Amino acid sequence: MRMIKWQNGTVITPDQTKLPLQEVTLEIKTVEQMAEAIKNLRVRGAPLLGAAASFGIALAAYNSKEKDTPKLLAELETAGIVIKRQRPTAVNLFWGVDRVLNKAKSVSGSVEELKAAVILEAQKIADEDAAQNRAIGKNGSVLIKDGDTILTHCNAGELATVEYGTALGVVRAAWEEGKKIKVIADETRPLLQGARLTAYELKREGIPVTLITDNMAGYVMSKGLVNLVIVGADRIVQDAVFNKIGTYSVAVLAHEHKIPFYVAAPKSTFDLTRKAAAVEVEERKPEEVTHIGGVQIAPNGVNVMNPSFDPTPLKYVTGIITESRVIYSKDFGDFRKGKV
Amino acid sequence: MRMIKWQNGTVITPDQTKLPLQEVTLEIKTVEQMAEAIKNLRVRGAPLLGAAASFGIALAAYNSKEKDTPKLLAELETAGIVIKRQRPTAVNLFWGVDRVLNKAKSVSGSVEELKAAVILEAQKIADEDAAQNRAIGKNGSVLIKDGDTILTHCNAGELATVEYGTALGVVRAAWEEGKKIKVIADETRPLLQGARLTAYELKREGIPVTLITDNMAGYVMSKGLVNLVIVGADRIVQDAVFNKIGTYSVAVLAHEHKIPFYVAAPKSTFDLTRKAAAVEVEERKPEEVTHIGGVQIAPNGVNVMNPSFDPTPLKYVTGIITESRVIYSKDFGDFRKGKV
Repeated sequence: MRMIKWQNGTVITPDQTKLPLQEVTLEIKTVEQMAEAIKNLRVRGAPLLGAAASFGIALAAYNSKEKDTPKLLAELETAGIVIKRQRPTAVNLFWGVDRVLNKAKSVSGSVEELKAAVILEAQKIADEDAAQNRAIGKNGSVLIKDGDTILTHCNAGELATVEYGTALGVVRAAWEEGKKIKVIADETRPLLQGARLTAYELKREGIPVTLITDNMAGYVMSKGLVNLVIVGADRIVQDAVFNKIGTYSVAVLAHEHKIPFYVAAPKSTFDLTRKAAAVEVEERKPEEVTHIGGVQIAPNGVNVMNPSFDPTPLKYVTGIITESRVIYSKDFGDFRKGKV
Repeated sequence: MRMIKWQNGTVITPDQTKLPLQEVTLEIKTVEQMAEAIKNLRVRGAPLLGAAASFGIALAAYNSKEKDTPKLLAELETAGIVIKRQRPTAVNLFWGVDRVLNKAKSVSGSVEELKAAVILEAQKIADEDAAQNRAIGKNGSVLIKDGDTILTHCNAGELATVEYGTALGVVRAAWEEGKKIKVIADETRPLLQGARLTAYELKREGIPVTLITDNMAGYVMSKGLVNLVIVGADRIVQDAVFNKIGTYSVAVLAHEHKIPFYVAAPKSTFDLTRKAAAVEVEERKPEEVTHIGGVQIAPNGVNVMNPSFDPTPLKYVTGIITESRVIYSKDFGDFRKGKV
């Protein structure tokens, strides 16, 4: 299913904060609306954020009243700054904005030609993401055996991408090949993307899924119920994979139980210019921890930590499944040098 | 603060399902009401369950219309069965019932004398628990240095005991000795005893506490923010500590980060007659996972696991803090042979 679409100056995408109980479609018409949707996780998931970011710039171009190209370019640059500041950790946001802006800068032509080029580039990014995820699925499905149970964290599914999913793309590909597999989904507090989105998406697809709270991951592993772990990624740096908070705990637990731990992500997630220590981890508001669905679950005024991501050092990662190939731990040396 | 009291045939205790937003006092008058309170976690926490179970038998005795002692004893035995079947994993429930029943059987006297003995024994259990927890606190506080941050899981505090707490008793003792300490509390899904009870209890006491979701434990450890872990226990067998689901994951994470992992529990929690494999783990209803405070967070009909406890093998445990002494890992051999 296509998760994000351009339709005559409107971006169509589901409001993921309403799932699984309500299926609400957003019609985003301005860059400000796109920024709000990104900030509040109506649109979320690293690869989908890349497409959403580029569509945000496309909306700015589409709506612009500027009559000359330098001014239009300046307006698009401003739109890019607005988009980028919504989520500091997700590299795809930066990547999506920069790719469209670079395209815009490379066009020599009229304002209308520039606008058309920007919109086309955003659509191309979306199409490429859909194709990449199918390639990731195909490359990763060889790692899954008939009868396997895969544990996943957060949602790196269709709902996190333009189409098909990354971690769940691998699951989907194995399922489409006829392998009888099962998924165990961590609920993924605080925002419950596993309970709300992964469980919803797999159930809709008919792929057997069992929901657990995050703190059950060690227990199900100790019981021999997990054959491999596959998660997505928000940013892959020289020495670590940044993904949803809790991924690191799952990786350590998998390591202790000798369970393979794979990361599925397109190469647009790679940021090999830096190390984990140089990445800012987004700290979100305390209410996400103290409240669930509007219900307060902790005492008034309690001190809270709410980092949105954590870095998993590469030593815990068995392999990274990309659209080109699976990069195994033995090749991480090359990987670190940027030979991916 | 005394968490459970006998008052002229009524057991007074807070309804822990209402905390932290409402402070509701239960007035439990029958063994059936006590069974309901135990089943629905209005009364919870291993040591408190021991006292609650014995007070349940005391209520049965107090309310009995039987005129001869064998019939009264039979009625108390039935009450014991009712109490015990509410929570299969917590050994203190069994221990509390059996201790009062054994006392009842040892009394040779009138029905009234037997009733009085039962009620007195229940009160004695409560008093002993309060004293034991202070001893646990004293024995454990030497493990805490000025400036330490202690991570804890679930609630092994005042609210889990008759008074003072076990894991939080150790924290409390260190605090009373003037050590400037901090606590990081896992929220402890599904029932959020960390968010609801530990955060509430420590905040009320003025001890600095930071609430995290369960899946942040690995991250805060990797950041060097945790000096030691202290948790309670629901049952300690020959080869493992049963405690709230998620304890095992925390123990593995502590092990990986070389952070000491302590269990604080009275000797009534020990069940050295068996190994972990022989213990039934309570599976609770799926709604505890799919709903939070009445709000549905997962798709309708999703498959769920909801084990209430997990076993942490002793190899992950640095020491067990009891009312007699700290049993260090090097002494676990003796411990296994019952020399505690």
